[in-house]
Amino acid sequence: MGLEVNEGRGFVLWLTGLSGAGKTTLAGRLVPELRARGLRVEVLDGDEVRTNLSKGLGFSKEDRDTNIRRIGYVARLLARNGVAAVTAAISPYREVRAEVRRAVEGDGAEFVEVYVECPLEVLAERDVKGLYRKALAGELKGFTGVSDPYEEPSAPDVVVRTDEEAIETSAERIILELERRGLLPTRFDVEELVLQGGADGHEHRTDV
Amino acid sequence: MGLEVNEGRGFVLWLTGLSGAGKTTLAGRLVPELRARGLRVEVLDGDEVRTNLSKGLGFSKEDRDTNIRRIGYVARLLARNGVAAVTAAISPYREVRAEVRRAVEGDGAEFVEVYVECPLEVLAERDVKGLYRKALAGELKGFTGVSDPYEEPSAPDVVVRTDEEAIETSAERIILELERRGLLPTRFDVEELVLQGGADGHEHRTDV
Repeated sequence: MGLEVNEGRGFVLWLTGLSGAGKTTLAGRLVPELRARGLRVEVLDGDEVRTNLSKGLGFSKEDRDTNIRRIGYVARLLARNGVAAVTAAISPYREVRAEVRRAVEGDGAEFVEVYVECPLEVLAERDVKGLYRKALAGELKGFTGVSDPYEEPSAPDVVVRTDEEAIETSAERIILELERRGLLPTRFDVEELVLQGGADGHEHRTDV
Repeated sequence: MGLEVNEGRGFVLWLTGLSGAGKTTLAGRLVPELRARGLRVEVLDGDEVRTNLSKGLGFSKEDRDTNIRRIGYVARLLARNGVAAVTAAISPYREVRAEVRRAVEGDGAEFVEVYVECPLEVLAERDVKGLYRKALAGELKGFTGVSDPYEEPSAPDVVVRTDEEAIETSAERIILELERRGLLPTRFDVEELVLQGGADGHEHRTDV
């Protein structure tokens, strides 16, 4: 591939998975690496977007769908302007994720769906926020994976198993997929660029 | 100024003014010119954003404020990623516009407020959609400028008078302001760039 740092092949990296599976942690790992390779990156976290775009929405299927459509709309605007938009929202429904994919791809940008997978038993055991316990005890209605549906991706672009592999490994596998698609310059490309004086990652070259 | 095409000095160009004053028309004129000079541009139109981000919101002060905050949030994300975000929403309340300005500037991007001014009498006479007539007859509640407040900008960066000047003139004055701030390369810069082989506007040079 030609090195296309800053050339603006925007994309959406869509992390989906249950609460506590590691979406936000994973996004936090990926961002510095993507930036170090010259990409513009924006993370759309489920909670942050709820605050800024979806205050007042609840957790019914309709409201969840609306929330995900809004995240998708913003991610799409960013991606078509050359930004790597990383989303970290549960996004439980397959059809809405597919709808966002169609919209993003319709703009000529790529949509990379990552299933951040972790078995319910493991999540219930970790239970950082104590929510799984409540949900499993029937005290929490509409909790995804327990008292509300989560539809696994039928054909995810990457699957990471956060209970079986270290977070670094999961991040690395996503990075390899982005490189394979030509969305991210390899470390080798970046080093070469630095040697040639384009160290700030803003230089644009059409071939290497 | 250094020519900074594609270098990513994003900004928000915030058009505010009454319904029918010419915000959307003006945005439509500006976009091709900004793109021709190498900028990435996204227009956030009031109606389009209502569909995608604010379905269900009404026209109370609170709902209007929420809608404007959402437009502001998206414009801000775009601007801090190097995009020229042009908004074309009535945005009647001064305080919310100021709040968006603070957020955008807090990210290190520029916020350029343009007051698209046209006297109510002229708008009522044009009345393309027949809304002013209804509002003035008391049949339309909450219509900005008639039965709902519009707070004029107290210190707009540009004022265009769409009843007194041609749309090209208004557009040109905004373009001059963007050039003056170093947010837009001048036509001279762009021509020179083309002569030097950077015709696609993606080349980056630090000085001219």
